[in-house]
Amino acid sequence: MPSQNTTRQHFASDNYAGVCPEAMHWFLEANASGHQPGYGDDEWTQRVCEQLRQLFQTDCDVYFVFNGTAANSLALASLCQSYHSVICTPVAHIETDECGGPEFFSNGSKLLIAENESTSAKLGKLTPDAVEQLVTRRADIHYPKPKVVSLTQATELGTVYSVEEVRAIAAIAKRRKLKLHMDGARFANAVAALGCEPADITWRAGVDVLCFGGTKNGLPVGEAVVFFDKALSEDFAYRVKQSGQLASKMRFISAPWIGMLQDDVWLRNARHANAMAQRLYGAIKDLAGVRVPHAPQVNSVFAFLPQPAIPALRAQGWKFYDFIAGGGCRLMCAWDTTPEAVDAFAGDIRRACAAA
Amino acid sequence: MPSQNTTRQHFASDNYAGVCPEAMHWFLEANASGHQPGYGDDEWTQRVCEQLRQLFQTDCDVYFVFNGTAANSLALASLCQSYHSVICTPVAHIETDECGGPEFFSNGSKLLIAENESTSAKLGKLTPDAVEQLVTRRADIHYPKPKVVSLTQATELGTVYSVEEVRAIAAIAKRRKLKLHMDGARFANAVAALGCEPADITWRAGVDVLCFGGTKNGLPVGEAVVFFDKALSEDFAYRVKQSGQLASKMRFISAPWIGMLQDDVWLRNARHANAMAQRLYGAIKDLAGVRVPHAPQVNSVFAFLPQPAIPALRAQGWKFYDFIAGGGCRLMCAWDTTPEAVDAFAGDIRRACAAA
Amino acid sequence: MPSQNTTRQHFASDNYAGVCPEAMHWFLEANASGHQPGYGDDEWTQRVCEQLRQLFQTDCDVYFVFNGTAANSLALASLCQSYHSVICTPVAHIETDECGGPEFFSNGSKLLIAENESTSAKLGKLTPDAVEQLVTRRADIHYPKPKVVSLTQATELGTVYSVEEVRAIAAIAKRRKLKLHMDGARFANAVAALGCEPADITWRAGVDVLCFGGTKNGLPVGEAVVFFDKALSEDFAYRVKQSGQLASKMRFISAPWIGMLQDDVWLRNARHANAMAQRLYGAIKDLAGVRVPHAPQVNSVFAFLPQPAIPALRAQGWKFYDFIAGGGCRLMCAWDTTPEAVDAFAGDIRRACAAA
Amino acid sequence: MPSQNTTRQHFASDNYAGVCPEAMHWFLEANASGHQPGYGDDEWTQRVCEQLRQLFQTDCDVYFVFNGTAANSLALASLCQSYHSVICTPVAHIETDECGGPEFFSNGSKLLIAENESTSAKLGKLTPDAVEQLVTRRADIHYPKPKVVSLTQATELGTVYSVEEVRAIAAIAKRRKLKLHMDGARFANAVAALGCEPADITWRAGVDVLCFGGTKNGLPVGEAVVFFDKALSEDFAYRVKQSGQLASKMRFISAPWIGMLQDDVWLRNARHANAMAQRLYGAIKDLAGVRVPHAPQVNSVFAFLPQPAIPALRAQGWKFYDFIAGGGCRLMCAWDTTPEAVDAFAGDIRRACAAA
Repeated sequence: MPSQNTTRQHFASDNYAGVCPEAMHWFLEANASGHQPGYGDDEWTQRVCEQLRQLFQTDCDVYFVFNGTAANSLALASLCQSYHSVICTPVAHIETDECGGPEFFSNGSKLLIAENESTSAKLGKLTPDAVEQLVTRRADIHYPKPKVVSLTQATELGTVYSVEEVRAIAAIAKRRKLKLHMDGARFANAVAALGCEPADITWRAGVDVLCFGGTKNGLPVGEAVVFFDKALSEDFAYRVKQSGQLASKMRFISAPWIGMLQDDVWLRNARHANAMAQRLYGAIKDLAGVRVPHAPQVNSVFAFLPQPAIPALRAQGWKFYDFIAGGGCRLMCAWDTTPEAVDAFAGDIRRACAAA
Repeated sequence: MPSQNTTRQHFASDNYAGVCPEAMHWFLEANASGHQPGYGDDEWTQRVCEQLRQLFQTDCDVYFVFNGTAANSLALASLCQSYHSVICTPVAHIETDECGGPEFFSNGSKLLIAENESTSAKLGKLTPDAVEQLVTRRADIHYPKPKVVSLTQATELGTVYSVEEVRAIAAIAKRRKLKLHMDGARFANAVAALGCEPADITWRAGVDVLCFGGTKNGLPVGEAVVFFDKALSEDFAYRVKQSGQLASKMRFISAPWIGMLQDDVWLRNARHANAMAQRLYGAIKDLAGVRVPHAPQVNSVFAFLPQPAIPALRAQGWKFYDFIAGGGCRLMCAWDTTPEAVDAFAGDIRRACAAA
Repeated sequence: MPSQNTTRQHFASDNYAGVCPEAMHWFLEANASGHQPGYGDDEWTQRVCEQLRQLFQTDCDVYFVFNGTAANSLALASLCQSYHSVICTPVAHIETDECGGPEFFSNGSKLLIAENESTSAKLGKLTPDAVEQLVTRRADIHYPKPKVVSLTQATELGTVYSVEEVRAIAAIAKRRKLKLHMDGARFANAVAALGCEPADITWRAGVDVLCFGGTKNGLPVGEAVVFFDKALSEDFAYRVKQSGQLASKMRFISAPWIGMLQDDVWLRNARHANAMAQRLYGAIKDLAGVRVPHAPQVNSVFAFLPQPAIPALRAQGWKFYDFIAGGGCRLMCAWDTTPEAVDAFAGDIRRACAAA
Repeated sequence: MPSQNTTRQHFASDNYAGVCPEAMHWFLEANASGHQPGYGDDEWTQRVCEQLRQLFQTDCDVYFVFNGTAANSLALASLCQSYHSVICTPVAHIETDECGGPEFFSNGSKLLIAENESTSAKLGKLTPDAVEQLVTRRADIHYPKPKVVSLTQATELGTVYSVEEVRAIAAIAKRRKLKLHMDGARFANAVAALGCEPADITWRAGVDVLCFGGTKNGLPVGEAVVFFDKALSEDFAYRVKQSGQLASKMRFISAPWIGMLQDDVWLRNARHANAMAQRLYGAIKDLAGVRVPHAPQVNSVFAFLPQPAIPALRAQGWKFYDFIAGGGCRLMCAWDTTPEAVDAFAGDIRRACAAA
C-alpha cells in the first residue's frame, strides 16, 4: 500500500520546508521586545552582521534582502552597468528561472552563456576555459563588455565547485578584470559537502560577492548579500531601498539568522539535507529501470525513472520536478526531510518502477 | 521623574511595533503544516485572496509583495509606461521617501507634483482642481503624459479623504483618462476613521488599484496589491517575479493576513491606534507652548512643541520624528501602543514644555 | 599588380557607402527652405509619411529614428513589457550586435534564442517549428513570457524569407498571441530579391511592425519604424522623445527619404547592390580554394577563402569582415559599389588564392 | 501692410534654422570621399575630436550623439546610479522638456529641484546656496543621494552664468562630492556673450562634463559630449552604442563640426544670433504696452506683449512660443536670422501693440 499521510513531505524543492525551530525561536524573541527601530537599526540586525563577519573571518559588508531573485540581481547590478555582461552557465538560475530579473535590475546587462562541462562530475559548472573563451570572443562596442563571472554554489545540477575550481575561475576573472559573484542559494549545502571554512570557498578563493541563501536552509524569508570587497558595496543600501528590498520591520528578517548561525545550525541543517539525499540515492540507485548518473554531492538526486513510473508516483501524491524531458527527475531534500519520508518515497519509487 | 522602562514604546513610526498575536498565530500555524508548495500555491494564500475578495465585496485580483516601496512602485508601473507620469502631492510617500523607487520600477515615469491644499483639514490631500491643472498644463510630447493619479489614504499628514473627495478625484481622473491608484500603507486607519465599507472608499469610489498595507497594521512583513480593474493586472504575476517580490515560501507572507482579516482584527488594530492618537491629542493640545493645528483623523498627532522641549524629550529616550523644521513633530501611535505609554509620553511632554 | 586607388571601395559593410544623389538632393532642398518648424511639423516629414503609406498600400503609422539599434529596440519595447521575451535566431543583429540595446530600452526583456535552420538555403532563418518549440517549452512565471517574434529580412547571413515563410511564422505567432516584428535593416535588398510588393512581405503576411532601414540603402542617417497595427503605436511619439530619438531639425532626417522613395530609388539601389554581390559571386565561386556555400540572395557573399589569402588581401588594403572563424568572410556590396571595384577585388582574391 | 514672404523667418526656436554653409560644406566633402569606415573610425571624426581638444586646451574625451536629450541624459547617467539624484532648477530643460529622458536613461535617477534666483539678472540660474540647501536637507537612504549638479549655460531663460558663478557652484559641488554637468545646448551663445575662453567657463571653472550643442548653432543633427574628467567616461562608448546613439555613418555627424570649428564659425554664428536678439530688444523695449524685464544676454528676448497683440501677430504668420501665461513671449533668434526679419517682426509687433 502506498504511503499516505496528511503532512506528507515532498521532494520538489527545499523551499517546500518551513521554518526551523532555531530560526523561529529568534523570530518570536524579536517580536517579544516591543517597539524597535525599523530599517535595520535594531539590535538583531547589527548582531547578525557581526556573526556573519565572524563566520567569514573578515570585515565584510552585509545586507539583507527578501529573496534570491533580488539578492542575485542587486549584487550583479552593483558589479556592472547596463552595457556590461555577466558570464554564467546555461543552467544558471539567473538565466533560467528569474524571469529576466538580472536584466531588469541592471537595466539591460546581458547574460553571456558559457558552455558548461558535460562530464558527469562537472555537470552545471563553469570552467576557466569557458570563461576565457567568452571573454576573448569579442572586444568591440557592439557587444556588451564582460564584467562579472557568476557561479552557483552548489550548482543547479547538484554539483559543488571545489576550492581549487573556484580559485582557478577567480584567477582568470582577475586576469580579465572581471568580478566574481557567487549565487549561494544552497551555499550551506556546498560548505557542508566540502567540509571547508566558508572563507575558503569565498573571499579566500577570490569571490567578491556572495548571495548567502537563508530561505532554503530554514528561514521563512530572506537572503544575505555579503560583499567581501567593500569598495563594491558603495551606496548599496540606497540600491536596496530603491528596489523595494528594505524591510521596515527588519528584525523579522534578520533575527532568525541568529538562530541559524548559533551553534552552526545552518551547517547542521545542510548536512542533514545532504544526508537525506545520500539515503535516497542509496535506496534507488540500483533499482531496475532507474539511472542516477552521478552520486549526490548536496541535497538533490537527479534520477532517470522509467517513464510510466513518473505519473504513477504523482498520482500517489508525491511532488517532484522534471529537470529534463524524457524521465529526468530532480528529487530534492530539505533541512527537515525525515528518513521515514525518504524511505516511504523510495519504497513507492521501487514499486512504481517494478510496475512500469 | 521621567518614565523609564526597558520595553519603552515609541511614537516615531507605526513600524516600530511588532507582530500582532492574531497574525503570529497564523504564521505559526502555517509553519506547523510541514511541506507546502511554494510561490503561492498553498492553501493560505488562496484563502486570504478569497477573504480579501469578500472584504471588498468584488472579484478583485490580489498579489502579495514584501513592502510598500514595491507595492506602490509595481502598481504604478503596471498603470503607466516609462514616458507617462503620475500625479501626486509634494508630501506623497512615493515622492519623498522611496529613493526613486517608482522611477526605477517604471524605468523613468516622472512624478508630477500637484499643489496640495493647505487649509488644515485638507493638509496633504490632492484636489480635483490640482489634478485638472496639472493634466491640462501641457499636451506636447516633450512632457511625460499624465496617466495615473496617486492618492495616499490616510495621507502622510494624517488626514483622510472622504468618500466624496475620492469620488470627485476619480471623476476628473476618468474624464482625463487617468487611472486611480491608492497608496494604503495606512488604509486600515483611514477605514477605521471613516467608518465606511472598504469597498466604498476604493472601487465604488473609482479606485483602480489599492496597495493595502499590512506591515504597519500588525504584520511582520508584506503588503497586498489589490486590482479592482482586472484588465490592469494582466501578467502582473510576472512583474512581481521579475522584480524580486515573489516569496518562495509564500505562506509566511500570506497566512498572517488570515489572522488580520478574521473578526476584523485589522480594523480593531487600526481603531486602537487611532484612539491612542486621540488620547495623546487630548492630553497635550492645551498645554502652554504646544500647538496642534488639527485634531488627529487617524493614528498620528502633528504637534508643534517648544524648541527646547524636543531635545529634552529625546534625552529622556523618547523617539519621534520631526515633520517640519522649527518644532513640528510627528507623534505616531501603533496597533499596540498602550494608554500607559501615551500617558507617560504626554506627561513627559507636559513637563518638558513647562521647563522650556 | 594589385589594384590601388585613393577612393578605394570596400566590402566590409554597406554602411561604408555615403549618401546617394537622390537623398542628397532632398537634404539640400530641405535646407534651402529657411526656417521650418522642428520635431516633424514640417512639410517633408508629412510628405514622406504619406509616401510610405502609399508604398505599403495601407494606413500605417510612421516614425523616424536615428539608427537601427533604436528602431529595433523601440519597436520591440513597444510590443512587450520588461517581463516578456522576444524570440529570435542566434545570429539576429538584436542578439549579437546591439550591446544589449533591446534589453536596455525594454528594461529587461529577454531575447530567447531559437534554433535556426542550418541547411544552406535557410541559413539564419527562423522556422515555425523553432518558434513553437520555444513558446511551449515553459509556461511558468519564472520564465519571461514570449510576446514577440523578431525576423530579420534579409537575414544577417544574407538569406531572404519568402512570403510563404513569413506567413507561416505569422500564423504560429498569431496562434500563440505573439506580435511579429521585422528588422528590415536590409529590407530593400530583400524586396528587390523577392520582386514582390512591400505590402506582401509585411502586413499582408502578418508583420505588425517593420523597421525599414534607410542608412544602408543610401541615407546619411535614419530609419523608419512602420506600425501596420496602429493599436501598437499608441503614445510611441512619447517613447521616441524620451529615449533621445526625436530630431529637432527633423527635416534633415525625413526629407532624404523623399529622394529614396521617388521613382523607386530605394529599390534601384538595392537591386544594384544585389547585382554586385552576384557579380562577385560569379567571379570567385569556382576559384580553387574558395568555397561559397550558397549563392547570394541579397547584397552579400559569404565565402570561405584559403587562410593565407585573408591577411594578404587585407595587406593590400581591402576591408571586409570575418563572419566565422577559420576563413569565413562576409563580402558586402553597397548601393554604390562599382563593377570595377568588384572586378578589382575579385582579381585580387584570385591572385591571393593562387598564391595561398 | 504686414510683411509676407514664402521664406519667412520665425522667432520660435533656434532649431527652426537650417544648416550653415560651413557645416554643409563638410557634409558634402565627407560624402565625396566614397567608402569610409563606420562608427567613427573615419578621418573626420578623429579630426574633430582633435579640434575640440584644441578648442578646450585640454586632453578631453569626446563623443558624438544625435541630440540634446541623449547628450544630457547619457552624460548624467554616466555620473550617477539609479538611486542617486541630480540637482537642477525648475526651468532646466532636463526637468521640463525631455519627457523623462534623464530618468529613463539612468533607470530612475531623480531630479531634485533647487529654488532658483528670481531677481531678473539671475533668472533661471542655480546658486551655491540653493545647491547646499538641497544637499544637506536629507541624508537618509529613503531619499536619493545627490550626486550631480546640472547647470544650463546659457539658461532656458536666456541668462548666462559668469565664470565666477560657475566656479562658486563648482566649489560647493566639490565640497559635497557632486559632479558638475553643463547642458550647453546654447553653449556657443554663452561663450559669445561672455567673451571668455571655452576652457574658462568649463573645466577650468570645475565642470566635469559638457554637452556642447551643435544643432541650434548650425548643424543638421548632433551634439558633442565632452568629458574633461576622463575617469568619468570609462566605457562611455558602450553606453552610447547600447542606447542607440552611435551613428553607423558617423562622418555625417562629425564632419560638419569641422566647418563649425574652423575659423570660429561656431562663435560667429552665436554672436550673430545674440546680436539679432539685441536688435530686436532695441526695437521693441520701449513700445507702449511692451515690457522686457531684462536685456538679452544671449539670443532670446523674453517680452511681455499686450494680450491681444499675440494672436494678432500669429494671425500674420509669425511663430514664437509663450514662456509664461499672461502675455510672456519667448522670441528666439538663430544663426541665420536676418536684420530684415528682425525689423519686419519688430514692425509688426509695433503695429500690433498700437492696435491692442
